[in-house]
Amino acid sequence: MRRLYHLPLSPFCRKVRLVLAEKKIEVELVMEKPWEQRMDFLRMNPAGQVPVLKMDGLTLCDSTAIVEYLEERYPESALLPRNPAERAEARRLAAWFDCKFHNEVTANLLYERVNKKLARTGYPEGTKIRAGRQNINFHLDYIGWLIEHRRWLAGDSLTIADFAAAAHLSCLDYTSDIDWTRNTGLHEWYSKIKSRPAFRSILADLVPGFTPPVHYADLDF
Amino acid sequence: MRRLYHLPLSPFCRKVRLVLAEKKIEVELVMEKPWEQRMDFLRMNPAGQVPVLKMDGLTLCDSTAIVEYLEERYPESALLPRNPAERAEARRLAAWFDCKFHNEVTANLLYERVNKKLARTGYPEGTKIRAGRQNINFHLDYIGWLIEHRRWLAGDSLTIADFAAAAHLSCLDYTSDIDWTRNTGLHEWYSKIKSRPAFRSILADLVPGFTPPVHYADLDF
Repeated sequence: MRRLYHLPLSPFCRKVRLVLAEKKIEVELVMEKPWEQRMDFLRMNPAGQVPVLKMDGLTLCDSTAIVEYLEERYPESALLPRNPAERAEARRLAAWFDCKFHNEVTANLLYERVNKKLARTGYPEGTKIRAGRQNINFHLDYIGWLIEHRRWLAGDSLTIADFAAAAHLSCLDYTSDIDWTRNTGLHEWYSKIKSRPAFRSILADLVPGFTPPVHYADLDF
Repeated sequence: MRRLYHLPLSPFCRKVRLVLAEKKIEVELVMEKPWEQRMDFLRMNPAGQVPVLKMDGLTLCDSTAIVEYLEERYPESALLPRNPAERAEARRLAAWFDCKFHNEVTANLLYERVNKKLARTGYPEGTKIRAGRQNINFHLDYIGWLIEHRRWLAGDSLTIADFAAAAHLSCLDYTSDIDWTRNTGLHEWYSKIKSRPAFRSILADLVPGFTPPVHYADLDF
């Protein structure tokens, strides 16, 4: 049985869930709270992080390594273009969201308010929340700018870049941190990706103690 | 002309330099101080980060995307194994050093003392330095443990995992942060990778204001 050890509001887990669903690979979702440092989990991933994917007799760790594995082994519904330049662009943008956006926005907004509360490791720091709120607009505008010039974030086709971005944005939409009126292109792009069947499981996520806004699961938001 | 915009003590730039050198791809090194936010540089990489590689008519950004591009386009001296499980392991470990080791060690030790001084953005924070010094031992022991079980970090062959790890460690060796007596396996592994021709340019790096220890460039350290 394929298993994904995950946390509902982890953008890295959501990225892997989206890629799995797009490729129609069914997995059992197993909730893992990394802060509990369960020994059996640390044996699977000494980094102590989700996602961890058990499939094909392997234990796969790190969301980028997992996505590359899935893309190589299950090439149908390709999420990396064929052309080397376009592949590099898709990977550049996936890294943009998983590193830059993550450090400047997700860590400041989501981790400060949600993860700290779940893991009971303290209270949100006001300076970080303010920094996150300021930084997010730059990134939302960058998505809008890309979409003015391209069909999808990295070019003509849907790629890992769109799923990396949508994974982060969907977590921050759950916590009401996205102003969808800010940019028409951004709204249209998210509306398009949110309507994909691959997105369904993510829109059904519920985290006790945190209620998503009404529009969170609404395709016509 | 191929050009790599880089900083000498950036582990991400060093990883790309090592991969380029291993594949015998010559590039012109251009020093870029990202904190100066040069407009022409931001046009190449709106993330404002080094490395940026100009080659084959492309502008390539993000060290992981660059390494994947080089591996796909210049497959000689392969740095990813053929087997999917081993590829996933090499990518997991490269991400370990570029994310986990980076956040827990490199950012605390190198960026606090070197980058802050170069960019004139303040003084090192004692709590971060102490955290970095404590965290590094866990990672050095992990390398030692891997090398007890394998020829190279990810398995039988030299991969991007070795270069990612060596890139971080070589920066921290420049600032005398590595205790090479801690672990025999670690010492032997680094000694082997340091002797490769690809490492030469890195051992010749000199950053004004920071003098490396005598053993830094010594192959018999």
